[in-house]
Amino acid sequence: MKYHINPPLTGERFEVLYRLQGNEVEALAKAKDICIEQTVEFPEDLLPEGDIRDQIIGQIVDFSPCSEDEFLARISYPVEDAGGTLVQFLNVVFGNISIKPGIRVEALDLPESILNLFRGPRLGRDGLRRLLQAPQRPLLCTALKPMGLSTKDLASQAYQFALGGIDIIKDDHGLGNQPFCPYDERVYRCAQAVSDANQKSGFHAIYMPSLNFPSEMLLEKAHLAKEAGVGGFLVAPALIGFDTMRALAENDSLGLPIISHPSFLGSYTIHPSMGISHYALFGQLTRLAGADATIYPNFGGRFSFSKEECTRIVDGCQVPMKHIAPIFPAPGGGMTMDRIPGMLDIYGRDLIVLIGGGLHRQSNDLIKTSRYFRNLVEEI
Amino acid sequence: MKYHINPPLTGERFEVLYRLQGNEVEALAKAKDICIEQTVEFPEDLLPEGDIRDQIIGQIVDFSPCSEDEFLARISYPVEDAGGTLVQFLNVVFGNISIKPGIRVEALDLPESILNLFRGPRLGRDGLRRLLQAPQRPLLCTALKPMGLSTKDLASQAYQFALGGIDIIKDDHGLGNQPFCPYDERVYRCAQAVSDANQKSGFHAIYMPSLNFPSEMLLEKAHLAKEAGVGGFLVAPALIGFDTMRALAENDSLGLPIISHPSFLGSYTIHPSMGISHYALFGQLTRLAGADATIYPNFGGRFSFSKEECTRIVDGCQVPMKHIAPIFPAPGGGMTMDRIPGMLDIYGRDLIVLIGGGLHRQSNDLIKTSRYFRNLVEEI
Repeated sequence: MKYHINPPLTGERFEVLYRLQGNEVEALAKAKDICIEQTVEFPEDLLPEGDIRDQIIGQIVDFSPCSEDEFLARISYPVEDAGGTLVQFLNVVFGNISIKPGIRVEALDLPESILNLFRGPRLGRDGLRRLLQAPQRPLLCTALKPMGLSTKDLASQAYQFALGGIDIIKDDHGLGNQPFCPYDERVYRCAQAVSDANQKSGFHAIYMPSLNFPSEMLLEKAHLAKEAGVGGFLVAPALIGFDTMRALAENDSLGLPIISHPSFLGSYTIHPSMGISHYALFGQLTRLAGADATIYPNFGGRFSFSKEECTRIVDGCQVPMKHIAPIFPAPGGGMTMDRIPGMLDIYGRDLIVLIGGGLHRQSNDLIKTSRYFRNLVEEI
Repeated sequence: MKYHINPPLTGERFEVLYRLQGNEVEALAKAKDICIEQTVEFPEDLLPEGDIRDQIIGQIVDFSPCSEDEFLARISYPVEDAGGTLVQFLNVVFGNISIKPGIRVEALDLPESILNLFRGPRLGRDGLRRLLQAPQRPLLCTALKPMGLSTKDLASQAYQFALGGIDIIKDDHGLGNQPFCPYDERVYRCAQAVSDANQKSGFHAIYMPSLNFPSEMLLEKAHLAKEAGVGGFLVAPALIGFDTMRALAENDSLGLPIISHPSFLGSYTIHPSMGISHYALFGQLTRLAGADATIYPNFGGRFSFSKEECTRIVDGCQVPMKHIAPIFPAPGGGMTMDRIPGMLDIYGRDLIVLIGGGLHRQSNDLIKTSRYFRNLVEEI
């Protein structure tokens, strides 16, 4: 007797492109295994005849070689498997197989019924440009640091950066609620400092605090910051959860942009043939989870991303995904001002140039340095 | 002029043991880099003289070779850097350096002031044994599957498993809120089925649904399940966030045990010289984040963990961490009943034996199979 699922599945499916290590036999076995492991996780020969076997499990849509010992498998899953949530969607895309070697998620191909589950970035590129009144040029970003400074000193930095013309002044991602720079005090002081600078300069800089808080306190602390006048939030999705970032982005009572930070996320990309591609992780998934910009380490900085990996992130930031807006790539990680012309050559103008510690090396005068940074970006 | 931090730091520090790839010069450079990258993320030569340089940054406490091209570095950080939260603690332990190659977190050595931030497992080994009235023997666990079954069929499975003597009957980790097995209906039916079976059998089985919900709905759905009579929750910390799992565990109005699932977590352990060790990830961090048991793929199953990695997980489950209770290792992933004697030899009795699909292969009679499973475990 055939097993019928009730209500019947719609037949609509989403696709994940996996890169699989091994010769053809090995890679095909991996693909078949993924179809089972990511859905029913059940001995295939014991599955009931009918809808579960015919529809619930993954299906190999395409299988082709991509190098001597690697194959690409496009696998489709019914949209119903994703259970209507980002959490369960990630579970299907790369849950258990994150533990199996030689499997990398290369790209997601999502139908409207999956995309409609998510609002995506609140502002996206266009909205963030409007907020900052910067219709065309690359945006400028820096971080308040080093950890250990008082809120007064951090606010003084924020004032100077804003006065000099930096658009987005964010907390360093390691600023939490340390006793030497308590969050409540910090967000008031820094938001006020940036507002004061804007009054004087006529610019439209915003301050974005880092939200490194326990689940129970996240919303309260985000609202407190909003009342203090912050212009958005820095969020590390691997630390607080991709879905928690999405919830913050979709929260209308906050209504503020979010920049995603890669802290604790690197393990997904660090092995070239396992994990999740730069394109899907820093691009597609970060957009689904509602960030308006995605910070990642630029090539040639302190980290190890290649130029090609970085341009693939840009692709993931802007590949059409229906109503899910394109977002800004925000390459950072040891950038200095002499890198700017080269960065613009590669990234174009839809870019957030993030320079942190490098600004402090230029001179002690952060206003002057920020003006120089702004001029550099505007002149190009 | 020296920079003084206010309030002054207590001087108390926590330690992380890192394994670093490279020759002595390279590995030492990595260790020094970690001290900066994980704290101030600022050019070292530009740091102000005083407390930041002397205390805020990481300090190499020990540095020694562990193989021809690997070194162990023990690095200490002031407890204040962790900002009093699990989120920021993880940020310091392995935030940005997750993006840098050749660095693996081997172990955490935490003083009371860090451990006191966390409640740890609600029940731990002793509490879970009391709940299940199984003072000494290994515990039995299985999963309701395959995805695609109706709530009625899943509840029927739950009844049979419970009647046969399985202690913990959990949702398969892929069960979310799919239209064919809606969560609200599922938790009522399955909790009721297990309760009915307990009435008949005199056993004390519990049902644990999988909490694959958006942040906004997690607590509501957890409470609904509690009212329905579930005995705990299955939670995947990589999917909902380690800190969100902690919040669920510490929530007194729920007051239920949690089993941690490794979905989406594998990328942290899959590269042998990067990420986080099995010991620290599936053991120490899972305990800090409040799980009472930690599911991971046993050696010799469908996944790739070695016997040594599995025994290191057990070490992490029980290493003394003050009030943070020891938890149960729950090796699974393709286990079958013939593996039980061998598992008990290695793991001893403080173990949850998790067999999912393997139970269905034994026979069509799940009650009989469960009784056989129970007898096997009790007889040893």
